[in-house]
Amino acid sequence: MTAARWAHRHLLGIEDLSAEEIVQVLDLAETFVEISERPIKKVPTLRGKTVINLFLEPSTRTRTSFEIAAKRLSADAINISGSTSSAVKGETLLDTARNLQAMAPDVIVLRHSSSGAPHFIARHVGAAVINAGDGTHEHPTQALLDCATLRKHKGLRGGSFAGLTVAIVGDIAHSRVARSDLLALTKLGAKVRLAGPRTMLPVGIEAMGAEVHERVETAIDGADAVIMLRIQQERLDKTSLFPNTREYSRYFGLGLRMAARLKPDAIVMHPGPINRGVELDPAIADGERSVILDQVTYGVAVRMALLYLLGGGAPGEAAA
Amino acid sequence: MTAARWAHRHLLGIEDLSAEEIVQVLDLAETFVEISERPIKKVPTLRGKTVINLFLEPSTRTRTSFEIAAKRLSADAINISGSTSSAVKGETLLDTARNLQAMAPDVIVLRHSSSGAPHFIARHVGAAVINAGDGTHEHPTQALLDCATLRKHKGLRGGSFAGLTVAIVGDIAHSRVARSDLLALTKLGAKVRLAGPRTMLPVGIEAMGAEVHERVETAIDGADAVIMLRIQQERLDKTSLFPNTREYSRYFGLGLRMAARLKPDAIVMHPGPINRGVELDPAIADGERSVILDQVTYGVAVRMALLYLLGGGAPGEAAA
Amino acid sequence: MTAARWAHRHLLGIEDLSAEEIVQVLDLAETFVEISERPIKKVPTLRGKTVINLFLEPSTRTRTSFEIAAKRLSADAINISGSTSSAVKGETLLDTARNLQAMAPDVIVLRHSSSGAPHFIARHVGAAVINAGDGTHEHPTQALLDCATLRKHKGLRGGSFAGLTVAIVGDIAHSRVARSDLLALTKLGAKVRLAGPRTMLPVGIEAMGAEVHERVETAIDGADAVIMLRIQQERLDKTSLFPNTREYSRYFGLGLRMAARLKPDAIVMHPGPINRGVELDPAIADGERSVILDQVTYGVAVRMALLYLLGGGAPGEAAA
Repeated sequence: MTAARWAHRHLLGIEDLSAEEIVQVLDLAETFVEISERPIKKVPTLRGKTVINLFLEPSTRTRTSFEIAAKRLSADAINISGSTSSAVKGETLLDTARNLQAMAPDVIVLRHSSSGAPHFIARHVGAAVINAGDGTHEHPTQALLDCATLRKHKGLRGGSFAGLTVAIVGDIAHSRVARSDLLALTKLGAKVRLAGPRTMLPVGIEAMGAEVHERVETAIDGADAVIMLRIQQERLDKTSLFPNTREYSRYFGLGLRMAARLKPDAIVMHPGPINRGVELDPAIADGERSVILDQVTYGVAVRMALLYLLGGGAPGEAAA
Repeated sequence: MTAARWAHRHLLGIEDLSAEEIVQVLDLAETFVEISERPIKKVPTLRGKTVINLFLEPSTRTRTSFEIAAKRLSADAINISGSTSSAVKGETLLDTARNLQAMAPDVIVLRHSSSGAPHFIARHVGAAVINAGDGTHEHPTQALLDCATLRKHKGLRGGSFAGLTVAIVGDIAHSRVARSDLLALTKLGAKVRLAGPRTMLPVGIEAMGAEVHERVETAIDGADAVIMLRIQQERLDKTSLFPNTREYSRYFGLGLRMAARLKPDAIVMHPGPINRGVELDPAIADGERSVILDQVTYGVAVRMALLYLLGGGAPGEAAA
Repeated sequence: MTAARWAHRHLLGIEDLSAEEIVQVLDLAETFVEISERPIKKVPTLRGKTVINLFLEPSTRTRTSFEIAAKRLSADAINISGSTSSAVKGETLLDTARNLQAMAPDVIVLRHSSSGAPHFIARHVGAAVINAGDGTHEHPTQALLDCATLRKHKGLRGGSFAGLTVAIVGDIAHSRVARSDLLALTKLGAKVRLAGPRTMLPVGIEAMGAEVHERVETAIDGADAVIMLRIQQERLDKTSLFPNTREYSRYFGLGLRMAARLKPDAIVMHPGPINRGVELDPAIADGERSVILDQVTYGVAVRMALLYLLGGGAPGEAAA
């Protein structure tokens, strides 16, 4: 691996990246997939670097993915979770970030319930900031792992996603995954269709380059891939956005009957964790079309790539 | 240390092990006890391996023991606890396991409140699975550390436990420790007596080779060792299994008067944490007969042995 | 760095240290500040050593500081927090400590809500014990990092704090930080003034060598540094120690008007986390006088120094 040139100090959102930069991350991630398949899954790239996983909103899988990524690069990983953080003592996010910065970390990975939180702290710390999901705004590493998965399973080369049609189904308005996926896929030239209940479709989203569908049938018709979003059951029960789980599943879930409409080679994706039987039928989640676990594998690889690019490790040491 | 031959991919329960295999673990554990006594308590055996401690039921000491064991073998240890896991988001255990598997761990250590949970995930993951306690079923590493402790303190050689009589006292019916101990000790040729309130003795347990006693006095009479189980105080208070803590202590606790009946060289064991003054008098817990802290020391060593056998490290690298 | 001679097995409180020993830690900390500024922030000093962070009272920043310190010295760091500990199962602190000891740690860092807890366990374990804050008693690493910060920013040489006047303002009676600071600063020859509401000033504190002030104005008049303590808002609301937050802020907070009374070169310190607008005006916390983030940086360095002195690493290996 040659030393990568990378123009950004942080990874705050897909909106900041060019198509070329996205492809650069995808290419690098392929290298790191290979490292996790070795008997000794560790390279010395980030030895002596400190990665702080600051998860102020609960998340097991994303935190675990970043922690494994950091450790496989030989970085020291420090976990701070919301329930144990000073947040309980009423400290502001900025004070938390500045205090962590004073301990000289190289990377701060932030998951936060407020949109824009990573951008805010990035302006005040010297460390590289990686957005691990902020409110309803962006979840850029999810979009990158989704692109890596699509590229592999649809046999695309380089960054040429032209001709690819991807349907994203669910609560689009509240989904940072949908937003980052839409940004990344359109930058790479794919066509994106968004489908969900009318109350869950943001107004004006067409301006971002998406086709909007109120029915899943038309959204998945001829699509090469469908990304089923996790439905927040709390949202169904506590708001008037949709009647109930059963109705949601019937009209916006991907069941066997609906899946029969998919193109023969269409793949099914999901950011996890799955509500089995709600947005996705178990037979499909575990079926041949599903590439959901490959998404998880690419998750570690994409995060290794980003930590490599942003963590200040010695170039050339990467996967040597 | 020569490369060990080991026939099992997982450690799910003592029931799967032969007497020879149990002895193999005990012998290996002796080597690892020695490593923890060195000034530099670390060997490179599992460098580049990933051990996930998935504790979906609270446990400090077992998790800490596995974490220390993994780190002393140079593995990367990742902790996931119930309170921070996706379990809260309603994901199934199988989905959690498959997702972790997609991150390419070498070993998954699972503590779970449901009996059979480790067996279930072992059928679906490529990683080695170690049962760190499943419901009321088994706690095999506890049984192995108990056997290591007994072997040392009773001066036994190899795997010859014949002639040894061990009494296990407490809530036998709900104790995975009792079950694993019984299996291990009988395989090694020891005689096991089980004692507890009638409501806490499982029906038909004699078929597993144990003598059943309804009084502690007869159970410990002539025994070489007694294992006092932790009584779940919740169980006493919330069920009708036993009147109350005070009554329990009086009839089934090991107090000074009761302990006077022990053989002069009998040892006292306890899986911890101790309810002082309930199942065990503090003077005995801290007295000369007690080998409770040696159990803890062997806990780390036995877990190092198992991680070594199952973690896929290079043979011969172990304690070199 | 030459091998340090250090007479103590534990760090339980500033009261046990001589002025010379305090200076020894400060000097060593300067070396470790430098390590955290390197591209590769890691030295092999404590490789193969086990540091257990036993935090039975919540604390993000102190735990994180110790964890980073341990990892930069290449020790294996194990975190145990109150919410996940056996404490919930009713085990005594002594049993917890003895059990951890049986796993052969080199250092146990203890945060506990009871004064004297570290001293208690130190009498029963073989590991070095570091007090990371015990009840209302001591928080020695905070005092050491405060001294390191003062020494740097006031341009002091060696351990000569003579002529320095430091005001500590807040709930003195309940502050382990105030107590440890007072002990350390008076040992080094500084003059300490304590100020706070009458209900928050301990009786007889003058005997420890402090001047007691009931008004902030006189306490900070001519002071070289002022340490503003965090006010526990719970204490204001739930007790009759003080009317309310607003009144507290008005009379005992450091606002802009009050700060105008400070000497031109006086510095402002705070142990964090800050209640902005309560004990400290944000403009001062973020202003030129503030050295609060330097305190955090020295926190990691002082803890590295102490782990180095107490962790049993090979002398000479330190910052080589």
